[in-house]
Amino acid sequence: MSIAIEVAANIPLFKDFDEASLQKVASLMSSRTYLSHDIVMRKGETAENLAFLLSGKLQVVDLSEEGREIGIHFIQPGTYFGELSVIDGLPRSASVISVKLSEVAFLPSNHARELIFHHPLIAKRLMTHFAQIVRAASNQRTLLSIPNAFQRVFAQLQTFVRESKDGQVIEGLPKQHEIAIMVNTSRETVSRAIHTLMKLNIVEKQGAILIVKQPEQLKHVATVGVDEANIPKK
Amino acid sequence: MSIAIEVAANIPLFKDFDEASLQKVASLMSSRTYLSHDIVMRKGETAENLAFLLSGKLQVVDLSEEGREIGIHFIQPGTYFGELSVIDGLPRSASVISVKLSEVAFLPSNHARELIFHHPLIAKRLMTHFAQIVRAASNQRTLLSIPNAFQRVFAQLQTFVRESKDGQVIEGLPKQHEIAIMVNTSRETVSRAIHTLMKLNIVEKQGAILIVKQPEQLKHVATVGVDEANIPKK
Repeated sequence: MSIAIEVAANIPLFKDFDEASLQKVASLMSSRTYLSHDIVMRKGETAENLAFLLSGKLQVVDLSEEGREIGIHFIQPGTYFGELSVIDGLPRSASVISVKLSEVAFLPSNHARELIFHHPLIAKRLMTHFAQIVRAASNQRTLLSIPNAFQRVFAQLQTFVRESKDGQVIEGLPKQHEIAIMVNTSRETVSRAIHTLMKLNIVEKQGAILIVKQPEQLKHVATVGVDEANIPKK
Repeated sequence: MSIAIEVAANIPLFKDFDEASLQKVASLMSSRTYLSHDIVMRKGETAENLAFLLSGKLQVVDLSEEGREIGIHFIQPGTYFGELSVIDGLPRSASVISVKLSEVAFLPSNHARELIFHHPLIAKRLMTHFAQIVRAASNQRTLLSIPNAFQRVFAQLQTFVRESKDGQVIEGLPKQHEIAIMVNTSRETVSRAIHTLMKLNIVEKQGAILIVKQPEQLKHVATVGVDEANIPKK
């Protein structure tokens, strides 16, 4: 039971961590390999460990009472997960499954708490991470309160926009049914909304990338809707 | 510039804090009185302070792009607020106004960060608080993803239910327009949903309190809707 110190050093949460602490934490961790579709963490369980994805890809799965999927969230290598239950001792809030061959490292909860609460560097990183989640949740609540489904899609697309050398673009656009779940509408509505943006020449598809040709207009239609915006079609 | 050590000792975040640290933190804080409708914190500003409500009542005000109010959240005496910007250095995410005569204590951001990241007791309390917010946000997202407005109202009411000596009750029920904002529907729909529950004898109004006479049925109608539940009217 332990992982190599070089592996621990590569985990972003431990970046610039002093050698002695890193050595100790590596000695307390263990790792396990998961095949695609394996369950890594079960909703409702108590927290035995803080987990770190070393390689592969995991998906957080949260279901409504009726079994519908809520949100879609992937865990990328380098990230920790399961920290909520480690901190508050309450059951896991969601399940986590592997979507491809993945390696996960585990740090037992009591050691994880010692680490989280007693090392200012780690405490700061974890709280900054929480602050991000709280802000994102607040933004998503604002977005979901928009009554018009098209406008919700436009507003969600805005959150994906990044600055690149080609101007503003959306890379790695989630699948239409994934966006539909995020903004609480149907896949068909997402499809129609994106096609409307293309017809209005606000966005343009280039392979896997969506070029946002008129960022101001995207913001405008998200705020007032397509009818009110009154944009000439191309 | 400083507040009495007895005042600082009464702030829950500092409960069981050692005398020396308490003395130091009290000496670094200052307090200010606000009249009803005064602005305590402005959305978009940078964080100069971590704030604590000593007495009175404040409201967090968040507006959508079009100026609609999103959510309704009150700050009660003893609570700290404005911690997000103190932690991540980003602008304030919402404004805070006083709803009656209130006294607020302020701890400058640099001292607040020293306190938050270097004292395990404070770090633990703050992270537990964040864990609560993240779980609540996740539950609210689940709730908002329910397509039927009546069911959203029922599910929201469920979150207010508390155990009392009279069985399960809802005390301090928010106003109908406040519930409407929480679950993204109209005040009229909230009113009709609650009246439906009364007609079905699932809840009963007794003064300011709502007695939940059939908690299992409340859960059932929230999950499958009134039509599917097929409950005999009283």
